[in-house]
Amino acid sequence: MSYSEFLSKALDAAGAREGARIEASSGGKTYSGILMPHHEFSSPDILIIKIGSGYNIGVRMRPGLEVRVLDGQHEAQKKEDAAPRIDGLPNISLIGTGGTIASYVDYRTGAVRPALSASELTNAVPEIRDIANVSARALFSIFSENMGVEHWQKLAEAVAEEMNNGAAAVIIPHGTDTMGYTAAALSFMLEGLSGPVVLVGAQRSSDRPSSDASSNLLAAVRFCTAGGNAGVFAVMHDSPGDDSFAVHTGTRVRKMHTSRRDAFRSINAPPVARIGADGRIEQPQIPEAPPAGKVVVRSAMEKNAVLLQYYPGMSPDLFEDIIMKSKGIVISGSGLGHVNENMVPLIKKACGNGSVVVITSQCLNGSTNLNVYNTGRDMLSAGAISVGDMLPETAYVKLMWALANTADAEEAKKLMKTPLRSETGDRRTVDV
Amino acid sequence: MSYSEFLSKALDAAGAREGARIEASSGGKTYSGILMPHHEFSSPDILIIKIGSGYNIGVRMRPGLEVRVLDGQHEAQKKEDAAPRIDGLPNISLIGTGGTIASYVDYRTGAVRPALSASELTNAVPEIRDIANVSARALFSIFSENMGVEHWQKLAEAVAEEMNNGAAAVIIPHGTDTMGYTAAALSFMLEGLSGPVVLVGAQRSSDRPSSDASSNLLAAVRFCTAGGNAGVFAVMHDSPGDDSFAVHTGTRVRKMHTSRRDAFRSINAPPVARIGADGRIEQPQIPEAPPAGKVVVRSAMEKNAVLLQYYPGMSPDLFEDIIMKSKGIVISGSGLGHVNENMVPLIKKACGNGSVVVITSQCLNGSTNLNVYNTGRDMLSAGAISVGDMLPETAYVKLMWALANTADAEEAKKLMKTPLRSETGDRRTVDV
Repeated sequence: MSYSEFLSKALDAAGAREGARIEASSGGKTYSGILMPHHEFSSPDILIIKIGSGYNIGVRMRPGLEVRVLDGQHEAQKKEDAAPRIDGLPNISLIGTGGTIASYVDYRTGAVRPALSASELTNAVPEIRDIANVSARALFSIFSENMGVEHWQKLAEAVAEEMNNGAAAVIIPHGTDTMGYTAAALSFMLEGLSGPVVLVGAQRSSDRPSSDASSNLLAAVRFCTAGGNAGVFAVMHDSPGDDSFAVHTGTRVRKMHTSRRDAFRSINAPPVARIGADGRIEQPQIPEAPPAGKVVVRSAMEKNAVLLQYYPGMSPDLFEDIIMKSKGIVISGSGLGHVNENMVPLIKKACGNGSVVVITSQCLNGSTNLNVYNTGRDMLSAGAISVGDMLPETAYVKLMWALANTADAEEAKKLMKTPLRSETGDRRTVDV
Repeated sequence: MSYSEFLSKALDAAGAREGARIEASSGGKTYSGILMPHHEFSSPDILIIKIGSGYNIGVRMRPGLEVRVLDGQHEAQKKEDAAPRIDGLPNISLIGTGGTIASYVDYRTGAVRPALSASELTNAVPEIRDIANVSARALFSIFSENMGVEHWQKLAEAVAEEMNNGAAAVIIPHGTDTMGYTAAALSFMLEGLSGPVVLVGAQRSSDRPSSDASSNLLAAVRFCTAGGNAGVFAVMHDSPGDDSFAVHTGTRVRKMHTSRRDAFRSINAPPVARIGADGRIEQPQIPEAPPAGKVVVRSAMEKNAVLLQYYPGMSPDLFEDIIMKSKGIVISGSGLGHVNENMVPLIKKACGNGSVVVITSQCLNGSTNLNVYNTGRDMLSAGAISVGDMLPETAYVKLMWALANTADAEEAKKLMKTPLRSETGDRRTVDV
């Protein structure tokens, strides 16, 4: 949906484009601010402008309104141009994808929509200019629940391009909903990273006073400029306050709360580092020296894969079709990685059909082990494999990748059992 | 699988039944202990006996073996008979279902199997005799991953029978894998409970020195004898040591670690009580006075229901059949309860078909809220409902129950949104 006809015409006649500073008068009142895109939950007669405080407001316009452009240059672009490059500072590329970190609240409907550009984001945090040269580009502007496999692939290509063109690090503002999945996907797709690729998000949109957008972004930049780290990470609040930020390994991170600012947790591994509000970085383990050379993208994915949670009452008949149609099946079993014995013949049939069945645990914490109970042994006999303490979500992403980057199911299984990106740590319980 | 022909014949000829104390000689050696049932992962020639230390051993027998019965009375039964009832102590009924709490390790294969009887369990903890009169019955002897809807129904009937026959409390030793699901099912199925129904389990089998079977059971009995509490609970270790035990609300408890003794956690609610090793009970909130009168069982369940975790790449085409065939669909969405927008038409179709679609969050912690983002609003428009901070597993169990105990989908939706057993606490975010 876009602005209504009379409103669009008035904007067009004045030459007012999105991002321009405008003044609009209607019904005897005048409003000024930056012209924002319309969105579907507002009436088409509601003009959305960002006012001086940074808030977006929606104002009802009536036919006969008057529009005047105060400054036609796109606000974000202007600030971008104004920021000088400082020699000697590391170059960080910011690739925007959307999400709460780049969104605003519509004060009529209360709903949140992506709106800020990638460069607006960095410009919102002046401290960043002192420690890095940040160049920004917008790749997508979507909520992360709408991210799919193709988005991961495009993102991996874009990251490699930036790194291979001289970026010391890449920061990816991303919606929090599926940030863990994207982090895992980039982890496997990007090979030979010479620097950090950091996903960063916000649980509160950037125009709310309690927003964590700026502080998370600043923490991510600080981690990137600290040097020595290579790989895919996620940086988010580590506590409800603004005093501590955690750097999570991309294959180990999971959103564990719907709304808290410290929703993200490293599971089955400690965070790689913690960053204080003063910028001090605590990193217990000295990272391995990053490889030199170009980043290689291996972004092929077998999309014919599913992630299923086992539950009592799960019907093998109902799931037969899905399981038999899929080349990769990740089951988050109960406890150490179990399912009802009535599911085992179906698992056997799928394995016999050349599919790969990977068992993880819905407990999330701790390692799977199919050697302790008879149920587990039956599943091993049926051809399923378990993957230690790997998260179900990471196993699903890795399985799609493993199936697309190996010749057959046996090779894919071997790859699943080989730790590549710190995705599993408990080697004792990897039942080879 | 059972013992081999020659071994079975020798046992039968001697009149040796399971639970009897026997002596068996073969190959020049003699072994004595309590005769245990055979299990499928041992060779059928391996005789399983429980020796004096409490350990089960497997010994290979050869044709020509000699068997002698030392004491034909079932060991567990004998102890049961020997324990006198003490007047004035509360009567607690123990209903055995199986699981690690009642299992032993087979030292040939290293696998764990259910074996102990319900009465053996109570006899293993002498302290219990001083605080309660415990009578035990075995209902099932299965691992909890094999529990299904029918098991919940039979268990609910058995609990009601015990309570209505004068038990002050019922304790249910249960496998830990699906304990949370069973606790939720009993919570909804049992109406008007006048006392506590406590699920209790063990993460380490009872013949291992580190077993938590006895200490968890004792803590459960202590909670039951404290008085004043009614409802369904789960009692498990609250710390890795033997110093603290937590009492969880049946609809709020989830197994959050595959192997730790303190694997169980109350999610989105504090534990009801904590019990120290000395038996002291800390219960911050005084419970409501339990109702008098009989327990009513409402155990009808709509089995045509599914629990699905949303993940990026989830294909609406692949899941169409499952979703359209199900009367109840619980989706654990991302973040506040989201799915990819490409799933929304399918949700709409299912709702239009008279099914109930309930949105929960795979974050587990925190409340769903479909009013914040456009994605959520689209799902509400499609006819889905969200249920505050209810666990996905609890929502799945409640939905089966709600569908079977109401006249139509609209009534079932209303019931889903009505807190009945403390299954949701955050009423602000229940989007009615």
